[in-house]
Amino acid sequence: MVVLGIDPGFGRVGYGVISYVKNKYKAIEYGCISTEPNTPISKRLHKIELDLRQIISKYKIDAASIEDLFFNNNSKTAIKVAEARGVILNTLEDLNIPIFEYTPLQAKLAIVGYGRAEKIQVKNMVKEFLNLDKMPKLDDTTDALAIAICHTNSYRINSLIEK
Amino acid sequence: MVVLGIDPGFGRVGYGVISYVKNKYKAIEYGCISTEPNTPISKRLHKIELDLRQIISKYKIDAASIEDLFFNNNSKTAIKVAEARGVILNTLEDLNIPIFEYTPLQAKLAIVGYGRAEKIQVKNMVKEFLNLDKMPKLDDTTDALAIAICHTNSYRINSLIEK
Repeated sequence: MVVLGIDPGFGRVGYGVISYVKNKYKAIEYGCISTEPNTPISKRLHKIELDLRQIISKYKIDAASIEDLFFNNNSKTAIKVAEARGVILNTLEDLNIPIFEYTPLQAKLAIVGYGRAEKIQVKNMVKEFLNLDKMPKLDDTTDALAIAICHTNSYRINSLIEK
Repeated sequence: MVVLGIDPGFGRVGYGVISYVKNKYKAIEYGCISTEPNTPISKRLHKIELDLRQIISKYKIDAASIEDLFFNNNSKTAIKVAEARGVILNTLEDLNIPIFEYTPLQAKLAIVGYGRAEKIQVKNMVKEFLNLDKMPKLDDTTDALAIAICHTNSYRINSLIEK
């Protein structure tokens, strides 16, 4: 199965396409969609849609796994991140890609086996799972890969339970 | 000029298309886009995009006027409203419609001339401005018409200043 993991944002959207075949994880493509600061939010949102479509067009994605949003404080930033997330969900829906949502807690649990894991532990496990030579440069990318692994793991566990 | 006013939401999106020609306001079409409760958010967002495109396709819209979001408490609802707003902004951008954003305070000021105006005062002024026979059923629709009037007024004032 091929899973697209997404860490939503409006300045940077982390993405990671991974495959899980014959008990092996493989990172296919990963990185960040970035948008220009000091640009109207509508233009930034539109760039996110177009770039996302381009990435998706290259693969046969079986599922998208996206981080759930929780905000403690109610800033302008939080609203913009949610606006970008809306555009991402809508694009996935338009492309008929099944969407799965996980909280950061669920992602940490699935990867490190411990919900309160430190960022560095998550990073190390992502590198390990995907057998990467080096860490991705940006945290957004690592988080996207983590959420993709999270879905793959949760899917495997659910298939085992259903059997 | 023809202005599309939008009151963002995920359950209901108020919209109002108004024209301002020869010092006269006219309501062309107004109502609510509604989405099914108990449906995945991605499907609701997608319906909003499709319905919005259908409404816009009927007119030559010069500008879209949309309410700015402010939230005091940080609920799941607030995030969903912002997600819907993101989809709306992105759709307008894709259709090359200039976007203008106003806070509820600005809208009240522009319509009633008083930022702390009551909802009923706004409603009455919207009915007055557009010479409507009766009030729109839903507040979302009235708010959308109000934000459309707000842009028209602010545009008129700015053109006067620039002259």
